[in-house]
Amino acid sequence: MTMTSTDAAMEEDKAVALLERTRDAVDPQLRAAVETLPGAIRRVAKYHFGWQDADGTPAAGRAGKAIRPALVLAAARAVGGDPDAAMRAAVAVELAHNFTLLHDDVIDEDTTRRHRPTAWAVFGVPDAVITGDAMFSLALRLLTDDPHPASPHAAGRLSTCVIELCAGQQADCGLEDRGPDDVTLDECLAMAMAKTGALLGCACALGALYGGADERAVRAMDGFGREAGLAFQLIDDLIGIWGDTARTGKPVGADLTAHKKSLPVVAALTSGTPAAAELAALYRGAMNTPGEVRSAADAVERAGGRDWAQAAAADRMARAVHHLSRAVPDPAAAGDLLALAEFVTRRTY
Amino acid sequence: MTMTSTDAAMEEDKAVALLERTRDAVDPQLRAAVETLPGAIRRVAKYHFGWQDADGTPAAGRAGKAIRPALVLAAARAVGGDPDAAMRAAVAVELAHNFTLLHDDVIDEDTTRRHRPTAWAVFGVPDAVITGDAMFSLALRLLTDDPHPASPHAAGRLSTCVIELCAGQQADCGLEDRGPDDVTLDECLAMAMAKTGALLGCACALGALYGGADERAVRAMDGFGREAGLAFQLIDDLIGIWGDTARTGKPVGADLTAHKKSLPVVAALTSGTPAAAELAALYRGAMNTPGEVRSAADAVERAGGRDWAQAAAADRMARAVHHLSRAVPDPAAAGDLLALAEFVTRRTY
Repeated sequence: MTMTSTDAAMEEDKAVALLERTRDAVDPQLRAAVETLPGAIRRVAKYHFGWQDADGTPAAGRAGKAIRPALVLAAARAVGGDPDAAMRAAVAVELAHNFTLLHDDVIDEDTTRRHRPTAWAVFGVPDAVITGDAMFSLALRLLTDDPHPASPHAAGRLSTCVIELCAGQQADCGLEDRGPDDVTLDECLAMAMAKTGALLGCACALGALYGGADERAVRAMDGFGREAGLAFQLIDDLIGIWGDTARTGKPVGADLTAHKKSLPVVAALTSGTPAAAELAALYRGAMNTPGEVRSAADAVERAGGRDWAQAAAADRMARAVHHLSRAVPDPAAAGDLLALAEFVTRRTY
Repeated sequence: MTMTSTDAAMEEDKAVALLERTRDAVDPQLRAAVETLPGAIRRVAKYHFGWQDADGTPAAGRAGKAIRPALVLAAARAVGGDPDAAMRAAVAVELAHNFTLLHDDVIDEDTTRRHRPTAWAVFGVPDAVITGDAMFSLALRLLTDDPHPASPHAAGRLSTCVIELCAGQQADCGLEDRGPDDVTLDECLAMAMAKTGALLGCACALGALYGGADERAVRAMDGFGREAGLAFQLIDDLIGIWGDTARTGKPVGADLTAHKKSLPVVAALTSGTPAAAELAALYRGAMNTPGEVRSAADAVERAGGRDWAQAAAADRMARAVHHLSRAVPDPAAAGDLLALAEFVTRRTY
């Protein structure tokens, strides 16, 4: 995984182009699926995806970066299958992802997503919960109605994955309620794997299933997505502290102000260093001034949290690549998946 | 459907015995399925089912009357199938039903169910939403992992049904927000069919599918469950006004105090009678004294809402029986299903 900066830039261009193509291919199918939802639910769904405003006026918004559907289609192609045949699986994974976003925003009481008020903030908790439920049902119906021979197995994998996502979200809520001295890095890693890694793994596994891969390759592809997902989460957590505001829209230090027990923070808190104690003290306070936030970021860095997260992300990427080489022995066939994994884990470097 | 009181009592005994047997057969499978959920989610699920108290102490509670699993198993038997082979479908339908209860209680802010505080009231909204999500995923996993040839089709039907349940719940919320002069009986009937009829229909359809019935019989069985479900809802709405407190635990007039736009109420409100105007005036007020609640019940009765609901319930049962005769030409084979339908729709007579 050693790359020159030119290689990296080329990989990034490749990933960006791939994500654009995926969005263009998936969006019409995603919209067609959402159109089958009952009227009042459809309205909330279309708002959530950024396709219309709260009053029903069409909006130009696009629904996220399409990383999960891109993984589904790229995985199908990587194992020698026809990505077009995996389109329903790509749409189903995107619907399942957005179902979790709708419910997570209710659960976390988050009021902003993709620079707009969240669905529950606009339509109320009932409509957001119901729309999430319907969106997940729709995801499963797409799979179960699909005549493709992989569809029953895929529906089973997606259902199992959602149970794991629920466990991850539940663990996350539990961690947030605990004191800074009362969390371990292992449980945070397990939570991140369940909450983020599981669905990226499922996306890759479903693509492999639809591409006709055997169970061993499907499992390896799941491992690739999971490890890449954890690398992604580590990078996302670094951005949550040191930001990259121009590209992400997230303010610097946002996760610290929110007292979030992100992975670099917990690595720092559990480091046994003097900086760990400083950080814990800041976490027990309000931490709402820019000075305090800077002190906390500094303490995470001095406690080794930043270096640990960067090394852990690199390690997870190496594991991802190892899984991928077992799923897809031909490096040329694995190119798109690698580019996507590089893309999602290089955003701050 | 003309029965003597002796016939009715025998049918009721038969149904009670059948529900007991179903509960005994389904409970171990249901518990085994719930045991597979991740720890913190499992705890909420076990509380919801009445198997343990909030602190984890085992409790003797049983999870409802098992009407839906009984319909699944009876439908499988009625079409000549082996009910034991349909056990997963019975458990899946019961899980899906309980998923909707968990979310509906959050949405409606109901604090009591089965004489205990609701899950969200004990564990908070996040845990109740997450546990509902996981329970529905588990229902679908049971079906998709089932090697039975009917399982993919059954999973598709259950997913589609849940979208309809969501539409029904959403419509219900919308109706409650509107004034007493601003609802039609047709939209209330459509809401009740979606919210209550759809899952009873799905239970019967899944039983028929697992019993090896053809698509025509599956559809007729779905129609039987839907119409019986609507009859059930009409009776339930009558109980919500005139009660049967000893048997149901619901106080007389509970739905009126809550300003619920139940079917007899809406039939009365839309009757064009002088009593309709009286009722609308009461619905625009607080209606929190026993005298006002009695006046409202009286107005529903004088406006014809009570008679209409009883006649409509009988009509829906007749339609149910007609569907059943198309699904199962042999009346002897249909006996259990008829007994269940009679049972759920005779609770006030």
